[in-house]
Amino acid sequence: MENHTLAGPVDPSPGDFSPTARTRLRRLSERGHYDRKTVYEILDAGLVCHVGYVIDGQPYVTATAYWRIGGRIYWHGSAASKMLRHLKGGVPVCFTVSLLDGLVLARSGFHSSINYRAVMALGRAQLVADRDEKLAALTAFSERLTPGRWPELKPPSEQELKATTVISLELEEVAAKVRTGPPKDDEEDLSLPVWAGVVPVATVLGQPEADPLLAPDIPAPAYLQDISIG
Amino acid sequence: MENHTLAGPVDPSPGDFSPTARTRLRRLSERGHYDRKTVYEILDAGLVCHVGYVIDGQPYVTATAYWRIGGRIYWHGSAASKMLRHLKGGVPVCFTVSLLDGLVLARSGFHSSINYRAVMALGRAQLVADRDEKLAALTAFSERLTPGRWPELKPPSEQELKATTVISLELEEVAAKVRTGPPKDDEEDLSLPVWAGVVPVATVLGQPEADPLLAPDIPAPAYLQDISIG
Repeated sequence: MENHTLAGPVDPSPGDFSPTARTRLRRLSERGHYDRKTVYEILDAGLVCHVGYVIDGQPYVTATAYWRIGGRIYWHGSAASKMLRHLKGGVPVCFTVSLLDGLVLARSGFHSSINYRAVMALGRAQLVADRDEKLAALTAFSERLTPGRWPELKPPSEQELKATTVISLELEEVAAKVRTGPPKDDEEDLSLPVWAGVVPVATVLGQPEADPLLAPDIPAPAYLQDISIG
Repeated sequence: MENHTLAGPVDPSPGDFSPTARTRLRRLSERGHYDRKTVYEILDAGLVCHVGYVIDGQPYVTATAYWRIGGRIYWHGSAASKMLRHLKGGVPVCFTVSLLDGLVLARSGFHSSINYRAVMALGRAQLVADRDEKLAALTAFSERLTPGRWPELKPPSEQELKATTVISLELEEVAAKVRTGPPKDDEEDLSLPVWAGVVPVATVLGQPEADPLLAPDIPAPAYLQDISIG
């Protein structure tokens, strides 16, 4: 909400997205956005996505952290993860990010709503198989969240790299959906004696809690204060 | 995080959930919970779910507000919504709620993680077709979020009720997944000179912003200060 500047690099060359029959907003079309800038800003503000996939006709939705590099999004996890073992086969996925910005309290239940920013991307997930590309992707994830921390960490061992699966999805069939602003009541309801407006919702970070096993002479690094989510 | 008391009624009679081949956590099984209390507490803390469904082999994940009444969860929207028109046919869905509680910064990227509470429910969505049941469900949604507000609002017209689709899902095949606490580094990494710990993440509500069209003599009601999400 406060800081929607681009946290990641903007790919300069490709143009905006084209709505398809699967991504075009038919109702409330004013909420739909297909430009790369809006999509990237939402993606770069979020941390957790919800990935949808199908196994034996049953949809599954798994929440997981993600990050963006140029025109691709990435997520990762254990190589033993059921989701990741399935997705690396290049099956159709739906990648959704939604950020809750406010409760919209109208004078009727019917017009009450929610302010939000969301992105939906459809496509086929790809396994990041190359060892160096995988390492670069994991580095980018760490640096997106805690810039400057990666060089401080123990570098991943080859065994850890093998035990980690990284998945990517090219942003091709994509739509953003955004609602902002006050309620839109019917004209004849405006004089009702009931409060109407927006209750803002934000994601905030609390004071860092040091690991009980942390040596007392290690201070909390400055980048912890700069983390921004939402 | 701060207030995880039960916001909705607890159904006293049915027992806990039984993990199935589709919901049992095989890895990190200590994070899995199948008791009704844990599931209800997470559901009652959240506001936005992600619903997964399949159309022509393609998974879709839609974010939407939800609420719980006893052993069922509900969500709603325009009768013209593509998602809702599809779901009312009783197709398989996956309902997922995830609440982000913290960033877990370990001494290696490999052991870095996220603290969260999540619930996944599988089943077939059902249309709430009965007019009175629909009205009761919509009332419960309003009261969950802003207790005491519903009687102040303009009651829904029959036309508005018809234009609103309410979907419900019985909680049957359900699992919760929770991670809490500090990082779990490898023993040999504990002496590394790098900060480790948890950065808490919370959802907070800001000061209510009155509708610009609100008459100046209508004060902000007290229940706005009691809203709790996350």
